[in-house]
Amino acid sequence: MPQGNPLEVPDDGLTTRARRNTPVLAVHTGAGKGKSTAAFGMALRAWNIGLNVAVFQFVKSAKWKVGEEAAFRQLGQLHAERGVGGAVEWHKMGAGWSWSRKAGSDNHHVAAAADGWAEIKRRLAAQRHDFYVLDEFTYPLKWGWLDVADVVDTLLSRPGYQHVVITGRDAPPELVEAADLVTDMTKVKHPMDAGRKGQKGIEW
Amino acid sequence: MPQGNPLEVPDDGLTTRARRNTPVLAVHTGAGKGKSTAAFGMALRAWNIGLNVAVFQFVKSAKWKVGEEAAFRQLGQLHAERGVGGAVEWHKMGAGWSWSRKAGSDNHHVAAAADGWAEIKRRLAAQRHDFYVLDEFTYPLKWGWLDVADVVDTLLSRPGYQHVVITGRDAPPELVEAADLVTDMTKVKHPMDAGRKGQKGIEW
Repeated sequence: MPQGNPLEVPDDGLTTRARRNTPVLAVHTGAGKGKSTAAFGMALRAWNIGLNVAVFQFVKSAKWKVGEEAAFRQLGQLHAERGVGGAVEWHKMGAGWSWSRKAGSDNHHVAAAADGWAEIKRRLAAQRHDFYVLDEFTYPLKWGWLDVADVVDTLLSRPGYQHVVITGRDAPPELVEAADLVTDMTKVKHPMDAGRKGQKGIEW
Repeated sequence: MPQGNPLEVPDDGLTTRARRNTPVLAVHTGAGKGKSTAAFGMALRAWNIGLNVAVFQFVKSAKWKVGEEAAFRQLGQLHAERGVGGAVEWHKMGAGWSWSRKAGSDNHHVAAAADGWAEIKRRLAAQRHDFYVLDEFTYPLKWGWLDVADVVDTLLSRPGYQHVVITGRDAPPELVEAADLVTDMTKVKHPMDAGRKGQKGIEW
């Protein structure tokens, strides 16, 4: 993560400062571990410099809780009580659904995803937050529950200075094309291959 | 991150509980973003369930500060004051060195890396922490500053229940072989390719 000069300076008419101050659209995709974890790590960094952070989890189950949620609630409380870091909001979108559910198998879930995205659109338009995590957001895109073109247009035309990080497998090509920063978390080896179960504090 | 049953149960004589309770050795490698960020995200999760977390940064520069350090110091303070989460220690190992420095170009840095590793070995033997992040630790291995066989033996024979996460490009094959969980963060697209400079709160 070099702080130095870029190798090439594009002929885009922007000053270095303007280029530096471009808000980031990042995508963490791939079959490996670390997509959400790295997004929450980025959110931690954003919190640290006082950005207003909002997490929208397109969750696998309405009961699903990750350790990060509790930790970020603590961080949000620190902000409220002592003014350190930034404000934090954590939302689970819609009714929740299983990530193994097939596309279109449940209209209820489709509607919940659409409602969740509509809320995010409103917040982007209102510049409500500085740093958004749309966790597991590729799945409603992949399953056709949301219109990819609408999502990409909304993200590319978002006003002001709002960072957005999107996680999930199989990010649509249009989203990859639109993003500034794309990392594919490639699975090399996973404990579950050796018959281990997930562990609290490690997997969630 | 499924909480369900593994697809295959190995014939290793362990109960599911014993297998679940195996401490994890994880490696985040590759040229893409998110290696350290995901490790700190895991540490956040570990903190949340009350594990004693220690970060050892084999830093690029003695002056180097990442946002996570400040955030984890806040979390450590929360633990000390209110008993929430786990204890946190954050160490920068040795004198710091540039990640662009070539192997063996500076005996001072080699000695600092050796001292740092010796301290980690002592702590692993003493079961001092529950969750270790060895950040950018692949570089002193890659440059031959530390003995890979010694590192791998020490990690594989560590006593008790200590999780270890190692980050950095070009993880040595012996380390990948020894690890339970290996993710290659593969670069698809990076803002610096478009001539942007790193941004506070995003890159560090």
